[in-house]
Amino acid sequence: MTEFFKNISKIKYEGKDTKNPLAFKYYNPEEVIGDKTMEEHLRFSMAYWHTLTGEGSDVFGDGTALRPWDTGSAMDIAKKRVEVAFEFMSKLNMPFFCFHDRDIAPEGETLKETNQNLDEIVALIKEKMDETGIKLLWGTANAFSNPRYVHGAATAPNADVFAYAAAQVKKAMEVTKELGGQNYVFWGGREGYETLLNTNMELEQDNLAKFLQMAVDYAKEIGFNGQFLIEPKPKEPTKHQYDFDTATVLGFLRKYGLDKGFKVNIETNHATLAGHTMQHELHFARINGVLGSVDANQGDMLLGWDTDQFPTNIYVTTLAMYEILKNGGLHRGGLNFDAKVRRGSFEPIDLFHAHIAGMDAFAKGLKVAHKLLEAGELEKVVAERYSSFSEGIGKDIVDRKVGFKELEAYALENDQVVNKSGRQELLENILNQYIFEL
Amino acid sequence: MTEFFKNISKIKYEGKDTKNPLAFKYYNPEEVIGDKTMEEHLRFSMAYWHTLTGEGSDVFGDGTALRPWDTGSAMDIAKKRVEVAFEFMSKLNMPFFCFHDRDIAPEGETLKETNQNLDEIVALIKEKMDETGIKLLWGTANAFSNPRYVHGAATAPNADVFAYAAAQVKKAMEVTKELGGQNYVFWGGREGYETLLNTNMELEQDNLAKFLQMAVDYAKEIGFNGQFLIEPKPKEPTKHQYDFDTATVLGFLRKYGLDKGFKVNIETNHATLAGHTMQHELHFARINGVLGSVDANQGDMLLGWDTDQFPTNIYVTTLAMYEILKNGGLHRGGLNFDAKVRRGSFEPIDLFHAHIAGMDAFAKGLKVAHKLLEAGELEKVVAERYSSFSEGIGKDIVDRKVGFKELEAYALENDQVVNKSGRQELLENILNQYIFEL
Amino acid sequence: MTEFFKNISKIKYEGKDTKNPLAFKYYNPEEVIGDKTMEEHLRFSMAYWHTLTGEGSDVFGDGTALRPWDTGSAMDIAKKRVEVAFEFMSKLNMPFFCFHDRDIAPEGETLKETNQNLDEIVALIKEKMDETGIKLLWGTANAFSNPRYVHGAATAPNADVFAYAAAQVKKAMEVTKELGGQNYVFWGGREGYETLLNTNMELEQDNLAKFLQMAVDYAKEIGFNGQFLIEPKPKEPTKHQYDFDTATVLGFLRKYGLDKGFKVNIETNHATLAGHTMQHELHFARINGVLGSVDANQGDMLLGWDTDQFPTNIYVTTLAMYEILKNGGLHRGGLNFDAKVRRGSFEPIDLFHAHIAGMDAFAKGLKVAHKLLEAGELEKVVAERYSSFSEGIGKDIVDRKVGFKELEAYALENDQVVNKSGRQELLENILNQYIFEL
Amino acid sequence: MTEFFKNISKIKYEGKDTKNPLAFKYYNPEEVIGDKTMEEHLRFSMAYWHTLTGEGSDVFGDGTALRPWDTGSAMDIAKKRVEVAFEFMSKLNMPFFCFHDRDIAPEGETLKETNQNLDEIVALIKEKMDETGIKLLWGTANAFSNPRYVHGAATAPNADVFAYAAAQVKKAMEVTKELGGQNYVFWGGREGYETLLNTNMELEQDNLAKFLQMAVDYAKEIGFNGQFLIEPKPKEPTKHQYDFDTATVLGFLRKYGLDKGFKVNIETNHATLAGHTMQHELHFARINGVLGSVDANQGDMLLGWDTDQFPTNIYVTTLAMYEILKNGGLHRGGLNFDAKVRRGSFEPIDLFHAHIAGMDAFAKGLKVAHKLLEAGELEKVVAERYSSFSEGIGKDIVDRKVGFKELEAYALENDQVVNKSGRQELLENILNQYIFEL
Repeated sequence: MTEFFKNISKIKYEGKDTKNPLAFKYYNPEEVIGDKTMEEHLRFSMAYWHTLTGEGSDVFGDGTALRPWDTGSAMDIAKKRVEVAFEFMSKLNMPFFCFHDRDIAPEGETLKETNQNLDEIVALIKEKMDETGIKLLWGTANAFSNPRYVHGAATAPNADVFAYAAAQVKKAMEVTKELGGQNYVFWGGREGYETLLNTNMELEQDNLAKFLQMAVDYAKEIGFNGQFLIEPKPKEPTKHQYDFDTATVLGFLRKYGLDKGFKVNIETNHATLAGHTMQHELHFARINGVLGSVDANQGDMLLGWDTDQFPTNIYVTTLAMYEILKNGGLHRGGLNFDAKVRRGSFEPIDLFHAHIAGMDAFAKGLKVAHKLLEAGELEKVVAERYSSFSEGIGKDIVDRKVGFKELEAYALENDQVVNKSGRQELLENILNQYIFEL
Repeated sequence: MTEFFKNISKIKYEGKDTKNPLAFKYYNPEEVIGDKTMEEHLRFSMAYWHTLTGEGSDVFGDGTALRPWDTGSAMDIAKKRVEVAFEFMSKLNMPFFCFHDRDIAPEGETLKETNQNLDEIVALIKEKMDETGIKLLWGTANAFSNPRYVHGAATAPNADVFAYAAAQVKKAMEVTKELGGQNYVFWGGREGYETLLNTNMELEQDNLAKFLQMAVDYAKEIGFNGQFLIEPKPKEPTKHQYDFDTATVLGFLRKYGLDKGFKVNIETNHATLAGHTMQHELHFARINGVLGSVDANQGDMLLGWDTDQFPTNIYVTTLAMYEILKNGGLHRGGLNFDAKVRRGSFEPIDLFHAHIAGMDAFAKGLKVAHKLLEAGELEKVVAERYSSFSEGIGKDIVDRKVGFKELEAYALENDQVVNKSGRQELLENILNQYIFEL
Repeated sequence: MTEFFKNISKIKYEGKDTKNPLAFKYYNPEEVIGDKTMEEHLRFSMAYWHTLTGEGSDVFGDGTALRPWDTGSAMDIAKKRVEVAFEFMSKLNMPFFCFHDRDIAPEGETLKETNQNLDEIVALIKEKMDETGIKLLWGTANAFSNPRYVHGAATAPNADVFAYAAAQVKKAMEVTKELGGQNYVFWGGREGYETLLNTNMELEQDNLAKFLQMAVDYAKEIGFNGQFLIEPKPKEPTKHQYDFDTATVLGFLRKYGLDKGFKVNIETNHATLAGHTMQHELHFARINGVLGSVDANQGDMLLGWDTDQFPTNIYVTTLAMYEILKNGGLHRGGLNFDAKVRRGSFEPIDLFHAHIAGMDAFAKGLKVAHKLLEAGELEKVVAERYSSFSEGIGKDIVDRKVGFKELEAYALENDQVVNKSGRQELLENILNQYIFEL
Repeated sequence: MTEFFKNISKIKYEGKDTKNPLAFKYYNPEEVIGDKTMEEHLRFSMAYWHTLTGEGSDVFGDGTALRPWDTGSAMDIAKKRVEVAFEFMSKLNMPFFCFHDRDIAPEGETLKETNQNLDEIVALIKEKMDETGIKLLWGTANAFSNPRYVHGAATAPNADVFAYAAAQVKKAMEVTKELGGQNYVFWGGREGYETLLNTNMELEQDNLAKFLQMAVDYAKEIGFNGQFLIEPKPKEPTKHQYDFDTATVLGFLRKYGLDKGFKVNIETNHATLAGHTMQHELHFARINGVLGSVDANQGDMLLGWDTDQFPTNIYVTTLAMYEILKNGGLHRGGLNFDAKVRRGSFEPIDLFHAHIAGMDAFAKGLKVAHKLLEAGELEKVVAERYSSFSEGIGKDIVDRKVGFKELEAYALENDQVVNKSGRQELLENILNQYIFEL
């Protein structure tokens, strides 16, 4: 146990009537919901970058975060963060974590030295994982912060940068495998463009496809069988990011014959920056069989950048869990809190408050979604609404037994169409009742 | 000649020093730019719906448009509009037009009667086309205005609506063929959803794919060899439209094996509503081989709905023509003014002012883009920027001769990467100089 | 009782366990919350325009609404709508309504005839008000739909239009007085511009101020003592609307010395189109003493136009009621459902579902807000947070006893500032607990 | 002369046919436009923070900027930057610069030491100003980057922070006076809130007013007669910034009786983030007599954050200069390039390219605007459009000779209103012709 959280006991489930701000009011890991425990359903994960590496800076201001353990050399800090991270996760009952290579260990002068730094910390992390039972949800490579990636990594206009990125991802995959990571994520923060005036998009996208194919090949070679995930985002830091949203990613993967090897890691704030609700992205990924994992956060709908706030909106968490339950769960994926405490929440204790807020909001969302599905109210409405495709001309359409000519003949006879109300307001009210009543 | 425009002479090219507002200052149809005349490059088209059918109403107000020819019965009006349309296009040197079935003829009590109305007007239009030499760029079906399409057409939850839409598109395709239309457009105004709470997106998208396949089959059957175009739009009127943007459309088409049969019809204001520049959409379509045609308008970047304004922004027209020239032209496509005069521009003469503004802006844009490409300044910058992929390790990457292991070996030896500036400001200035100097 | 709702009983409070969709689950008019009944707190109002006049059309589609009572001449329809309106409100326990002059009666050929139509319907409404006890929250004039207002009303470039608008508002004020209206609203739908290229903003704003002053004068003259309210909106239908948001309205009123005579009518969807939360607008109006009334709806945060949806978001209703309770209530104002059923919710019964959804969401929000304030948890946090201004140098600042020189002297001695966390995540979680627990 | 720019000659005007990228093509300082030289009209200023202090970092990446002069201790760097700044400005013919206190000198351990650092650099700058003739457009205090300002400066919930900010602004005003600064700017980067849940907006706004009053008092005391400017911005870094836009600032100043002492400093990218065009903000400030100065940059209309790009859009620069000319010029204000080279434009030469691009775009804009005003085409349209207010009933309205009763009498007689088209498309085309022709 570190000295930093010594006054904080393990966070327990105390139920909704507790006044203790350091208690779960809804998240009860062992509570069984349907066929699984809450812990199995939710598969919460801590994001190393925000919680350990983040400093609370923004474009207009320096870091504010008070992190008393951040003292000494870069490697000293890296080591202390490992200790703090695992104590923090243990106290929160957090079963998983995620990281970028550069979150956990600093770069050295050379790539070789960088890799040595990484190996040293990875060994430490492995020890802590064994000790605590906490698991790695996914690993990834940070190929966007270093100035070498200023114009992109796999889509850089400079072949040396492509090579460097390949070396970095290779190592990150090895490290992820070493730590038993269940997934490996590609977020292309700089894979896009700032201006089309200087961009060869065709070459860049071809190169990106080649890069991903190399990753697939290498995973096979080393026997890494974690799930590959692409994380869509439309923009920021780039003006345009190639993996705009799930639909764009799928179009890209299908073009290059890569669609068997990848699923998506969907983030709420990325969804909304792309003009979609989180539910939309999850639903769309689900029906396309590529719902891999979730970056659980939320944005401010009136702000045009990625605020990565902790998810506390009950509509977002309920509808996310609704889609996840319909997906049969997240399987190898999880709910990773890719969320940072606000710059004004700079004390260590805020890290607890923030994760508790998010975990309770998702636990409540899970309970509401489960009850909704158990009652089947929405399901029934939808089934009834599309029932005309289960018989007669509707079934013939679905079975492709008819074409335009047959349909025209039918329509000429049946041209006084009768529709039914979509009942949006009633359905919104039903959703509210489930949220309010639990 | 109708009585309505009798005081307006044919609009001529008078050059940039004229003070005549009813003259072209840049658009000189016969002027040769590179290998083609301006008219051949630009392939301008009038949108029947805005120019003839539109009434100048908006959500908060009634129609303002003064259209003295709109008198008599619905069919009377439809007939007079044909006369006015062709006189208008003739006076403007407009070589093409586009229409939805319901723009040109009113619906009847029954589908049969509706089709009869349509046939009557089509015959009239054909006559006028023969008389004037004006051609049909594309036809389409309006499957979004009538209340029967309240929940969608090909993606309606009601099989009778699907059938009706099929009958309507069948007829619209026949009519387009009859008039020698060079393309047929699918804009799915209601193909999307209002709320996921009542939506079976999977069935809806499967049905949409079936619908498009039926269209392909029927075109083959009747020997219609116009190009099929899908027009992306992210939203409005629906909360979410399935054909969100070009990337989404391509992902959809590839999923269902429909990608050989369709190109896209890109609209500026739809691009920006989806979070993209017009140039982005054109560029992306071009490198994917699906740049079919263009709906030439512009939006107000501070307004969140489709304002469909006439295109007057020289940056938009220049960069659009730049992409189009790089595409080898629009081929069977054209520049269709899917643009409406503002509600406050309600006099008939405004129709001339608006089209002249758009045509001159595109003519100037063509000239700038042509000169840019001839000088090759941007091309050289781009070629140089990516030159590392033409030799050495870069070429090996492109040729897939190397994988992660070889690249790691290379990177360990070459880890002090040197990048070059992307020169965005210089390039923006160069673009300005070409615009300012002409 | 009309024949239209004869199968619908009066909507009653049945509590949260009822499965009856035509029952209130939270709204219990007689329930006492603090010092008032729910009915007194909430002062619900029906918007005549959406519920009676609205047809379910949008920019891309015709009206869908099934309103079987809309038959006969324009005046016949107007009369039947009165009957339906009052039956509808009675069955919903709706104590107030609001209207524009043109919602309730059609325009005639002349202004005189228009006024006669209005008088005829007003007499009918008065009868119904007496009969049912339902009251008029506010009246207003529709000076935006008719083509004469294409360029504005009080800010039109045409003096005849200004005069016409004055005559119309004069009559609307008289009618509002006649019906005992508690407020009179100015929403300047066309008071703004489409393009600055043709606009004299200075003259337009001066004219607007003169218009409002004339209204103040006339109210005095006729002894109308309802509250005048300005309703901010940033845009739509205009590109820019002068009454952008509450802050803009206040700046305008202060410039022209009109600030004593007006408060604001705040609408959720207008707030969000202006880039603000609803809570922001209410809070800002409250601390400036101008929180007059509320248009209770909500927008879709991913859509850039005024969707005027029924308010079902519990965060919006809770935080609205929180501000309203801190305001000592709405006084003469109320919660007017300026909300329309979605175009797909076209059956008459949807009008009930939608209002019930909104009323229950606000009733629940009232209960949460009341409990929050009673517990004082947020209040205590805020008081503590600013406590340094109650003593020492902080008090001297507030009391203006010090200036820059004294503060510099203080700061030189006290330059190692210690701040405290703002605790945003904890506060969001507390808010959630209040919402989830009730 | 430093060693860094030794290969770069003074940038000269060479006219539009030059191919030299390091030449002005439109900006000819001595060219007389109307009653002044270009230099007098444009009053260009360099922003110290972006050009000298900025490092090219963003939220997702480290600094990329190659600044070979940034070596040694913090004070060493500060001194070298002064040399580089003045050489850079001299070579560019830049007559003014602007700075925040912390741009030019680093903070020390104590406020006293910080002030000493500042004094040392100020002395150096003064020397360079005398040597080169370059003048200070405005000074300001950075009261937003340091963690002490995490919750605001003048609106902090902590009185010690208010005091510190007062001390800092006091010093910055003294320094600005010392250097002959013509204006002093207040940009309240943190004067707003992150969440209303922890905010006492009333106290914060009262405190802000007190702070500004103290500044006014202190200026008087020390005889500083530069113009005070408030710079509006709606958000970023805060969720909501109090000085949202010009209208909000005016409402605030009028409330507290501060409107005589302040004008506004308008920034393009801040305008657009607030939902306004740059022209709107300038026009609105102009007609309210508070157009003080301009932060000349531009944003990306598809990105929701402050990109602070160099201004190259000819529409923006033309319409800005149009408003400025109508304002009789900027008087004590200027065009300050609050603009940063893109992160990918990291070489020192890009600083030249970027400023040249902006200066030429404004020079061209000035020429177009001047010619537009000289020709008076738009002026005539506007005058004619509002002519009905110069006579008859219109004049009576303007002169307040009539009220609602007289206007009703008039309207009853004149109720068949005739409007004229607003001619937006024609006017946009006219604007284009002026841009294209020069």
